[in-house]
Amino acid sequence: MEVDSDACRLTATAALAQTRSGHLTIEAHARSLLQRIDSRDADVAAWAHLDRQYVLRQARDLDSVAPSERGPLHGVPIAIKDIVYTQGKTVTTEFAATTTGVKTRNPHNAAHTPGGSSSGSAAAVADFQAPLSVGTQTGGSVVRPASFCGVYGFKPTWSAISREGIKVSSLTLDTVGFFARCTDDLDLLADVFRLRDDEPPPQQEAPGASCAFRAIEGARFAICKTPAWPAAGPGTRAALARAAELLRKHGAVVEAVDLSASFREVPRCHSVILHAEAQAVFLPEHLRQGGALAPELREFARGEKGYTRSDLVSALDGIAAKRQLMDGIASQYAAIVTPSVVDEAPAGLHSTGTPVFNRMWTALHSPVVNVPAFQGSSGMPIGISLVSARFRDRHLLRVAREVGKISKPRAGGRAHCSEDGGFQCRNLYR
Amino acid sequence: MEVDSDACRLTATAALAQTRSGHLTIEAHARSLLQRIDSRDADVAAWAHLDRQYVLRQARDLDSVAPSERGPLHGVPIAIKDIVYTQGKTVTTEFAATTTGVKTRNPHNAAHTPGGSSSGSAAAVADFQAPLSVGTQTGGSVVRPASFCGVYGFKPTWSAISREGIKVSSLTLDTVGFFARCTDDLDLLADVFRLRDDEPPPQQEAPGASCAFRAIEGARFAICKTPAWPAAGPGTRAALARAAELLRKHGAVVEAVDLSASFREVPRCHSVILHAEAQAVFLPEHLRQGGALAPELREFARGEKGYTRSDLVSALDGIAAKRQLMDGIASQYAAIVTPSVVDEAPAGLHSTGTPVFNRMWTALHSPVVNVPAFQGSSGMPIGISLVSARFRDRHLLRVAREVGKISKPRAGGRAHCSEDGGFQCRNLYR
Repeated sequence: MEVDSDACRLTATAALAQTRSGHLTIEAHARSLLQRIDSRDADVAAWAHLDRQYVLRQARDLDSVAPSERGPLHGVPIAIKDIVYTQGKTVTTEFAATTTGVKTRNPHNAAHTPGGSSSGSAAAVADFQAPLSVGTQTGGSVVRPASFCGVYGFKPTWSAISREGIKVSSLTLDTVGFFARCTDDLDLLADVFRLRDDEPPPQQEAPGASCAFRAIEGARFAICKTPAWPAAGPGTRAALARAAELLRKHGAVVEAVDLSASFREVPRCHSVILHAEAQAVFLPEHLRQGGALAPELREFARGEKGYTRSDLVSALDGIAAKRQLMDGIASQYAAIVTPSVVDEAPAGLHSTGTPVFNRMWTALHSPVVNVPAFQGSSGMPIGISLVSARFRDRHLLRVAREVGKISKPRAGGRAHCSEDGGFQCRNLYR
Repeated sequence: MEVDSDACRLTATAALAQTRSGHLTIEAHARSLLQRIDSRDADVAAWAHLDRQYVLRQARDLDSVAPSERGPLHGVPIAIKDIVYTQGKTVTTEFAATTTGVKTRNPHNAAHTPGGSSSGSAAAVADFQAPLSVGTQTGGSVVRPASFCGVYGFKPTWSAISREGIKVSSLTLDTVGFFARCTDDLDLLADVFRLRDDEPPPQQEAPGASCAFRAIEGARFAICKTPAWPAAGPGTRAALARAAELLRKHGAVVEAVDLSASFREVPRCHSVILHAEAQAVFLPEHLRQGGALAPELREFARGEKGYTRSDLVSALDGIAAKRQLMDGIASQYAAIVTPSVVDEAPAGLHSTGTPVFNRMWTALHSPVVNVPAFQGSSGMPIGISLVSARFRDRHLLRVAREVGKISKPRAGGRAHCSEDGGFQCRNLYR
C-alpha cells in the first residue's frame, strides 16, 4: 500500500474532517504517521513503546465502524506519556519526576533537549508523529517542552480532568495536560474531557460583538514577569516585549503587573509540597528498589531537603490563600502573559531544563496555555504562557486561539488551523 | 493438617511476635483465618475476592524466609478494600462512592449494616478474619464502619500516605485508612508507611514524666459536638457524655468547644468538592457504561447538583482557610473528642449509613481515630472519634492508645494489646 506522506501533517481536527468525509481512511492516516516515525525516530526518539501492528489493527477496526456510531475522537491518534496505564507510550523522565535521562531530542535541532518531563509527547506532536498528545505537569512538564518544541501546550485547572490511572508524584501539583499544533485540537480534547467554564453573566455578551476579535481588541492583558524574572534569558525577555507590542498593535490594553512581592513565597511552597508529597509517593519504590532509582527520587523518598511537617502545612495553607488572590488578579484580564521558559531549548540532552517560570502557576492551579509564538536567536522556538483564573479553561483556550493568530508571521487570509499547525513563529532577531 | 482455631484471634502484633519466635507458622495463622472465614462467610460476607490457594502458597513461601531476611510486616495478613489494585479484596460499595448495595453484614448482628464504603475491611477485622485491613475515606468510609463494627479505624492526615493504585473519587478528599483491633496494630502500619510527626520542641518533654499517663492525666481534651449535632441519636449523645466523664475521672481537663459558627459552611464545602471532583472522575465510566452505574454515580457524572465552578472555587478556598483555623484549635488539646456516627449501626442492609459526623474532618484533612469504646442500647458498638491537627498522626495514635485503655471495662492488670483486641466495650445503658 502506498503511503500518503502528507497525511501525518494534518491536525487532529483536519484529519477528523477527512476521515468523516471519506477523503482519508484512518488506516492511511496511521500509516502516514508510522512512516514519519520510522523516518525520524533515530533523530527524535519520542517513543518509549509503540506497537505498529496493534496501531494498524486498531485503525482498520475503526475504519469499519459506521459514521453514525463514531465518537468525537474516532480514529484520532493520541500519543500518551509513559506514566499513564495504556499501550503506545511517549518518552518521559523517570516517573516524570526528574529532569535527566531522556533519549528524546528536539525535532528542531537534535542537539537540543525537547524539555521534560513530557518530552516524547511534545516532540511527537512537533514532529508530525502524532497530531495530539497527553502529558502531565507537576513543575513545568507541559509548558516547558511545548515551548522548546514549538507547539501548543495546555495545562488545565487542577482537578478539572481526572488523574485516574496516572503515576502520582504530588497530589497537590500533578495536572494532566495536552499538546497540539493548533488550539482547535486542544478544544477537541477539552470537549471530550467536558472542560467547561461557568456561564458568564448575560451582560458580558454585547449583542453583535465579533467573538473572534473581542478577545484582543479592547481587551486587557497583564504582562507578568513573576518572581523568577532574573532567570529570564534574552530570548524570553524579547518574547515578552514582542508579545506586548503585538497585543497593543491589535488593539489590546496591555498593563504590567508586578507580582514579585505578594507571590515571593510561592516557589518555596511549590518545593516544600513537591518534596513532602513525593516522599510518601516514592516510598514503595525506594523500599523495593532504592538503589535503582534516580538520585532525585532517592532524595524525595529520604526527605533530604529536611522540610518539616510544619513547613508542609504552612506551604499548603499559604498557597491556598494565594490561589484566591491570583484568581482575583487574573479575572481582571483576558489573560496574564508570562514567560514559558528561561529561553530557547538549551543544547545537550543532559537536562530537560528548568521549570522556574511554570511551577508558580502549577502550584496556583491556574490554567496555562503555551502559545508557540516566537523564535530565539538560534532559530529555536520560544513560547509565551497565557494564564487565567481557575476554571476559566475554555475562556483561556479562546484567548489563546486569537493570540495564536496574531502571533503567526503569515496570519491573514487563510482560516486558522486549516493547515498543519507546524512551527512557524516570529523570529525575534530578524 | 489440624487448624489452630484460636490463632485467627491474634492481633497483628501478637501474630508477628509468635511467628518470629517460632511459636506459630505463617501458614498455621493463615489456615486459622481461612477456617474462620469459611465458618463465618455466609453471615458476614466481607470478601469480594479471596484465593485460598494463593494465600496458602504465599504463607508457605513466607515461612521459608530466614528471620534475618524478614521485613516489619512479614507474614501479616492484611485485607485490602476492593478499589485497590491487588489480589484478595474486601467488599466495598460501587467504586467506594455510594452508600448502597453491599452484601457484607455486621459481625455483631447480621441484620445490621457494617457501615461503608470500607464495609468488608471493617467487618473482616471485627470478625477475626484478618488482623489488619486497609480502607479509604472520602466522606466517612473508615470511621463509620469502624464504629459500627467495634474496631479501631484510623484516617491519617490527607496525603501522608500515597494513594497510588487506588480508584479515585475526589482528589481533595480521598484518604487511605486502616482498621485494627488495637492501636499497636495501627502503629505497625503507620511505621511501615513512615508516618511521622515533627519532633516536638524539647521543653514539652518534662524529664521523668510517665508517657503512658501524661496522655490523659493533666492533658486537655475538647468535646466537640460539630454542626451535625442535631443528627446525633441517644447512643452517640450518651457516648460523648461518657467519654468526657471517663477522661475527667482519669485526670484530664475536659472542655466543650463549640465549632458550629465558624465551621457551619464545611459540610457544604465537602459536598461541592465531592460532587465537582467526582464529576470529572466518573466521566469515563459514565461515557462507557452509564446505564450500568449506580444512580449516585450517574448524578456525580451529570453534575446534577448544579454546583458551578465558582461554587467549587469558593469551597476549595473556604475549606483551605478552615484547615488552618482547625489546626490552631486542635493544637491546644491532646485531642478533640467528637462523634463517629449518629448512633449504633442501623438495622437492614439497604444503606451503609450517613457520614454526617465524618465529612467535616475529611475535608479538613485532620487525622482521626475511631476508638471502639462503647455499646449502645441494642448492645451494638458505638465509637468516638479522636481528632488532632494535620500531621500529628503519631501523637494522635498515642492518645488513642491511652483513651482505648481507659475505655475498656476490664482495663487493669493486663498489658494493653496482648489479647485479641476484640469487641469489649462499655455498655452505655447498664
